[in-house]
Amino acid sequence: MKLTQTVKKGGCAAKVPALMLREILAGVRFPPTIAGVSVDGSLFDDAAIFEIDAEHALVQTLDFFTPILDDAYDFGAVAAANSLSDVYAMGGKPKTCMAILAAPLAVLEASLIQQVLQGASDVIEQSHSSLVGGHSIDDDTLKFGLSVTGLVHPKKIWKNDGACPGDHLILTKPLGTGTLCAGLKREAYSQADIKEAIDSMKRLNNIIDFLSHTDAIHAATDITGFGLAGHAYQLARASKVTLRLQFQKLPLFQKTMDSLALGHLTKAHRSNHDYTQRAMQWADSITELERLVLFDPQTSGGLLLSVSPAHSDQLLSDLAVHFPGCARIGEVQSLQGPHVFVV
Amino acid sequence: MKLTQTVKKGGCAAKVPALMLREILAGVRFPPTIAGVSVDGSLFDDAAIFEIDAEHALVQTLDFFTPILDDAYDFGAVAAANSLSDVYAMGGKPKTCMAILAAPLAVLEASLIQQVLQGASDVIEQSHSSLVGGHSIDDDTLKFGLSVTGLVHPKKIWKNDGACPGDHLILTKPLGTGTLCAGLKREAYSQADIKEAIDSMKRLNNIIDFLSHTDAIHAATDITGFGLAGHAYQLARASKVTLRLQFQKLPLFQKTMDSLALGHLTKAHRSNHDYTQRAMQWADSITELERLVLFDPQTSGGLLLSVSPAHSDQLLSDLAVHFPGCARIGEVQSLQGPHVFVV
Repeated sequence: MKLTQTVKKGGCAAKVPALMLREILAGVRFPPTIAGVSVDGSLFDDAAIFEIDAEHALVQTLDFFTPILDDAYDFGAVAAANSLSDVYAMGGKPKTCMAILAAPLAVLEASLIQQVLQGASDVIEQSHSSLVGGHSIDDDTLKFGLSVTGLVHPKKIWKNDGACPGDHLILTKPLGTGTLCAGLKREAYSQADIKEAIDSMKRLNNIIDFLSHTDAIHAATDITGFGLAGHAYQLARASKVTLRLQFQKLPLFQKTMDSLALGHLTKAHRSNHDYTQRAMQWADSITELERLVLFDPQTSGGLLLSVSPAHSDQLLSDLAVHFPGCARIGEVQSLQGPHVFVV
Repeated sequence: MKLTQTVKKGGCAAKVPALMLREILAGVRFPPTIAGVSVDGSLFDDAAIFEIDAEHALVQTLDFFTPILDDAYDFGAVAAANSLSDVYAMGGKPKTCMAILAAPLAVLEASLIQQVLQGASDVIEQSHSSLVGGHSIDDDTLKFGLSVTGLVHPKKIWKNDGACPGDHLILTKPLGTGTLCAGLKREAYSQADIKEAIDSMKRLNNIIDFLSHTDAIHAATDITGFGLAGHAYQLARASKVTLRLQFQKLPLFQKTMDSLALGHLTKAHRSNHDYTQRAMQWADSITELERLVLFDPQTSGGLLLSVSPAHSDQLLSDLAVHFPGCARIGEVQSLQGPHVFVV
């Protein structure tokens, strides 16, 4: 059974569209924010921060989606790494996970569900957190994800508003999971063809476990459904700066450009273009095809870090051991015209 | 649109059956439990405890289900109260909630989704917690629930293993939501017919907000899918005692006995009977029909409290102000024969 063929929309393509969600939420009177909640983000988006005392804050996130891969183990592993990533993106360390599982019991073999859970469990083990519960239901299509809680020191949270002019920008993973998974769903590729991207999506963004200079990280965000363009724009806007990205420095999977050229696109390539249109400026040398790289929606994508230039070489060499695609992709400038300038 | 007619299985009837779940989980090698996780329960069940330090422990639970009511606002409110209940059942106070939403965007009006969220928001507000995020997807059928995190002092957790011989047993809500919702799904009842049960399901089990003698509570659990029989059995087994329940003292909704007599049953009435068969003993005077009351699966049911006899009158009168159906239903005896004895 090819899991990607059991669903109409795979992965983040099944998300409620951002604009529709905003309209729905605008009609709801939400409860007041209680003391201690310092980041609730936009509702239904990103990780939240709840400060318990001067030493401890919770970082919380929840994510689940339909199969983007055919292999059940890999799907579970990617879903877990993707859910855990939001905690890492805030500088937190994951502690507890709860599983969200919906499965068509009548048609799906129990062993497939076990493989999904095993893939997730193995990634959770790597994160040094525990699976402490969850909920499972019989449903028409497979869905899986995690609700994750991590801990962070309240003064050491990596928010997206701390990027400073002069900072160097580091991206921890190559780009292209959106187009490659679109090619997989169209059966243009096998899982073996896109192994490089699958391995990348299964990899935890646990950079905090490897770094000694975390104070050098001024801002961070993880690259997911809005693509590098969308998340770079959000970070630049929050920090009131311009991010200058060098296209030739962007890490790509081997097949990323070919896959885009073959037209393996998702709705998100268009909506990410529309979302960032007024915030972007492009050097004339960047072709239309190349621009799609920045609109490509990522699943379990890398972290975009804005770091002190004095420490960027050290950080990059520390990270390169664990993140083969890790690269310095640009720098932060004081706000001048567009939020994101691609040269 | 009658929401209950849009799904094959409503509410907890859509849960993965306990036996199947156990078989699936038996084939998975789960990550080791990290330091601080003192209660992980059975996986996919109940609330977990993670101790942060000597003063603070997290109580965490996650639940979501398909519509058990036709009215979207009421469904959202009941789903929220049901999710929050597990935190109260451990003696915790809810702090943060994240929403789990799946909705058929093509057929469901946005206003219906807003009503689900409004119902949940109003209940979350009553619980003095915040809605800090969540995830929403386009799906074939409506599903809604919450991932909830609460705080509790590590020395003041109400576990289910603390019931002492001599304790009095208090139940905070009437029984019968399973049969009444089954009657609603069969269109034998309107929502107006079962208003008493709907109001009860929307009510928070926030007894901790009203009580001064919480030390008098030796054990607690909330009554949900396994019915009073199943959850009483689990508490008795964990505490190594016998619970003696007086059938005539059990609080019921006005239509509960009629609905059972009309045969509005679910699969859970049978499976709860089977689950508890060897643990139960019945006085001859209890009819087969009456036994179904104890097997009735509850959604957002009451708390079952095992309390010091010296304080039970005071607790009962404090609770009666907020929980009209609250009643003393029996007492705890040293273990002799069955775990649950109904007279």
